[in-house]
Amino acid sequence: MYKVDLNADLGESFGAYTIGMDSEVLCHITSANIACGFHAGDPVVMEKTVALAKECGVAVGAHPGYPDLMGFGRRNLKIKPAEAKAYIKYQVGALLAFTKAAGVKMQHVKPHGAFYNMAAVDDALAAAICEGIYETDPELILLGLAGSAHIRAAKAAGLRVASEVFADRAYMDDGTLVPRSQPGAMVHDRDLAIARTVRMVKEGCVETITGKTIPIQADSICVHGDNPDAIGFTSRIRAALEAEGVAIANIEQVLAGK
Amino acid sequence: MYKVDLNADLGESFGAYTIGMDSEVLCHITSANIACGFHAGDPVVMEKTVALAKECGVAVGAHPGYPDLMGFGRRNLKIKPAEAKAYIKYQVGALLAFTKAAGVKMQHVKPHGAFYNMAAVDDALAAAICEGIYETDPELILLGLAGSAHIRAAKAAGLRVASEVFADRAYMDDGTLVPRSQPGAMVHDRDLAIARTVRMVKEGCVETITGKTIPIQADSICVHGDNPDAIGFTSRIRAALEAEGVAIANIEQVLAGK
Amino acid sequence: MYKVDLNADLGESFGAYTIGMDSEVLCHITSANIACGFHAGDPVVMEKTVALAKECGVAVGAHPGYPDLMGFGRRNLKIKPAEAKAYIKYQVGALLAFTKAAGVKMQHVKPHGAFYNMAAVDDALAAAICEGIYETDPELILLGLAGSAHIRAAKAAGLRVASEVFADRAYMDDGTLVPRSQPGAMVHDRDLAIARTVRMVKEGCVETITGKTIPIQADSICVHGDNPDAIGFTSRIRAALEAEGVAIANIEQVLAGK
Amino acid sequence: MYKVDLNADLGESFGAYTIGMDSEVLCHITSANIACGFHAGDPVVMEKTVALAKECGVAVGAHPGYPDLMGFGRRNLKIKPAEAKAYIKYQVGALLAFTKAAGVKMQHVKPHGAFYNMAAVDDALAAAICEGIYETDPELILLGLAGSAHIRAAKAAGLRVASEVFADRAYMDDGTLVPRSQPGAMVHDRDLAIARTVRMVKEGCVETITGKTIPIQADSICVHGDNPDAIGFTSRIRAALEAEGVAIANIEQVLAGK
Repeated sequence: MYKVDLNADLGESFGAYTIGMDSEVLCHITSANIACGFHAGDPVVMEKTVALAKECGVAVGAHPGYPDLMGFGRRNLKIKPAEAKAYIKYQVGALLAFTKAAGVKMQHVKPHGAFYNMAAVDDALAAAICEGIYETDPELILLGLAGSAHIRAAKAAGLRVASEVFADRAYMDDGTLVPRSQPGAMVHDRDLAIARTVRMVKEGCVETITGKTIPIQADSICVHGDNPDAIGFTSRIRAALEAEGVAIANIEQVLAGK
Repeated sequence: MYKVDLNADLGESFGAYTIGMDSEVLCHITSANIACGFHAGDPVVMEKTVALAKECGVAVGAHPGYPDLMGFGRRNLKIKPAEAKAYIKYQVGALLAFTKAAGVKMQHVKPHGAFYNMAAVDDALAAAICEGIYETDPELILLGLAGSAHIRAAKAAGLRVASEVFADRAYMDDGTLVPRSQPGAMVHDRDLAIARTVRMVKEGCVETITGKTIPIQADSICVHGDNPDAIGFTSRIRAALEAEGVAIANIEQVLAGK
Repeated sequence: MYKVDLNADLGESFGAYTIGMDSEVLCHITSANIACGFHAGDPVVMEKTVALAKECGVAVGAHPGYPDLMGFGRRNLKIKPAEAKAYIKYQVGALLAFTKAAGVKMQHVKPHGAFYNMAAVDDALAAAICEGIYETDPELILLGLAGSAHIRAAKAAGLRVASEVFADRAYMDDGTLVPRSQPGAMVHDRDLAIARTVRMVKEGCVETITGKTIPIQADSICVHGDNPDAIGFTSRIRAALEAEGVAIANIEQVLAGK
Repeated sequence: MYKVDLNADLGESFGAYTIGMDSEVLCHITSANIACGFHAGDPVVMEKTVALAKECGVAVGAHPGYPDLMGFGRRNLKIKPAEAKAYIKYQVGALLAFTKAAGVKMQHVKPHGAFYNMAAVDDALAAAICEGIYETDPELILLGLAGSAHIRAAKAAGLRVASEVFADRAYMDDGTLVPRSQPGAMVHDRDLAIARTVRMVKEGCVETITGKTIPIQADSICVHGDNPDAIGFTSRIRAALEAEGVAIANIEQVLAGK
């Protein structure tokens, strides 16, 4: 039976600032990536978000980012691998205190924003991330970009890994995402995006921006919960997958089925 | 046999900024309080400091502070108990990632600076701190001010606790420290300070600023490693205690002997 | 003719985080207090907010706060007067770069949140704030709490000063605000709040929480623009004042008329 | 007569953290680049550093950096030109409050670390910096890397500009610095470094790493004050220049002589 995880970024509020419709999106997903205080999130928000995810039966993961609150962790920052490793440990450890206190097992780690993007194409950075995760808790799963340096680094580090795909992004022939700065980077047609997603999960392939069909591993689909529209789209993706006989299950369950 | 711990604050460097002579003071102490990134310290510094303490056989503790790097955590900040609890979990969890990765058991938690001082006289704040520690790891020991709200709160939370005394500070009749703003707050005569310390450890009492003798519990003595002079004083305290037949042992060992 | 200013806090967004309905509230007010990056706001937000205020013909002021983004500057922080003075200069100077670049004259400075509240009852802190403003630009006006240490300190520093009143807050017999923690602190009845505001402006007095009538100076009324309800209330206050023959004018104009 | 400026980075301390021997290096230089709180420095440090520079008769400049205290502004951060422009205004404005209060005219602006390096080779970033400076105060001088995008952007923005050279760095044939990651990047032989510096100032040329001689504009020489050794070197450079008949003068004076 086909199984796939739906993951979304949560706990991105900070102090008096609110981002995201966390309660709403939790009904639709199976894994939550919780911000850890560097690019978003604060200790009070982290505590609340873990409690909320637990209540909804959604698996919890850490979403460590660059120390750049002003840029929401979306700006490329050139850090050394040793810094990356220490930043990962720090943030994952911080969230572990909340999951442990809540009696929840942390399932996975997914680097955020520019940290994720830079590591997808930088083997040394990806290795540092994976070693940081492994040393903190070897049971954790890396949630990384399908076909990227993330996946190779996780395997080299002895870490379990789940491959993430994007419903609304176009792919290059080498399996990387078309950069947002290029035309055609986004799949704006939602019916098409959903059809592509179903195909990635059931057939393990995707049509690239040049029209070629390439294999792709789809363990988890990245969805969003920032606004009502994003939540509506998430809900449609889920319904379409289920209608196609795909079970929506968290990462641990998806990997267990393989 | 008399036993007492010597503790000092370590890992207070940050990025390009260095504070403290960590390597030097580690030869003289048995427990290290490691800054956790809020008032001082950063992930890279935390990793290095845990490794250094391990190498020297010094027990490791977390030293969580207020989120006030500009004030080094020394300025009173009025936070809610729920914030305090979450800040404790976050910082202790972050350091736990490094101790776990290094194969070191975290021994204790000592709040830093204004966080320590405010909680010593605020039962709700002290309770929040102790609950935060307990929920993160119930095996951890609170290192708190002898006779203060720290000690009461730790007991109420079911947490083990070690009572800290100060060699160079004067005490009020109620066992609290004479505020630094008052005359006579510091014991500048080092021979006297050492004699007072020995007495606190061996006789369990101290002469207050009014000349009265009061009982005091001395499980750990706070020493400093900021400069050569502080390290020299630390070395003298240790030698004097040993000459008086007091064994210098870490907090875990001190508590085990009771 | 009666004249009064309506002021609101603006530019409190930060990076990816949005707070406040700045464009909407600007239609109703005459002076904007713009956050300066310590408790809220960032350089990009400051630049946009100055441009927006200029476009709406609203006078611009600086709204410096404590360096506590996580607490939105609302938590008491015990800083030294020398620190307060330097923090004021830094933040006012930073905003001056944007007003100067936009060809706008900065009108006033209003400390934010806990900085405002603590200085209202602390003469040394209020003096430090006023000296910091004066040394940065002696033409600036302090917008401070009517009858508080703010007003005394501004006069002592040679600074022009405008007295601020609150439509929805109760007053003590000594003219200070009833602390929010006490019952009756807020005037929830909006008709009553509006009637009290009109009376403060036209008669220069207010009924305290004990029923006594005391004199109060009302140069500017603090209003809010966080949500549609607050904006509706602001609009009603303005309409009521105008219906009573009170001209709504910025602080500079209000002071010029005295 | 030959004239050249000696500039050094100052005011890099932060809170309880001290970096640099500011008092010592001030005796040897003519222009101080003062950190503005983003990569280093805080409001209290800025105020003290301006006072110190004034006392020593050293011209004051702003040294704005990336918002990366943990990395001391030395890590590449990919920000948009609009962000760069706003960050420049903010930091220059903040320092202007202190220079104005001290009765000192701010002379120049020199971007710090990675901000400087990235803008040297990025025309859009350099333009944003120069526009930010110009809009804040068109009288300010940009202190930029000789022959780089800095110089072109300043001219395009209508800003006066001074060309900076490095005593201890090797140059490429195109006039850019040899990256520190490459062999031969540093000129370790101090006699050679001094001879090269004198030649850059008096003959307007330098021998590149390939042995070619290229023209170079030397209005200001970057020196360091971090440690006694750096200060000794600075003192030797100054003595050698003076012995060669070169007057040491601040940037304003150097430019006035052209």
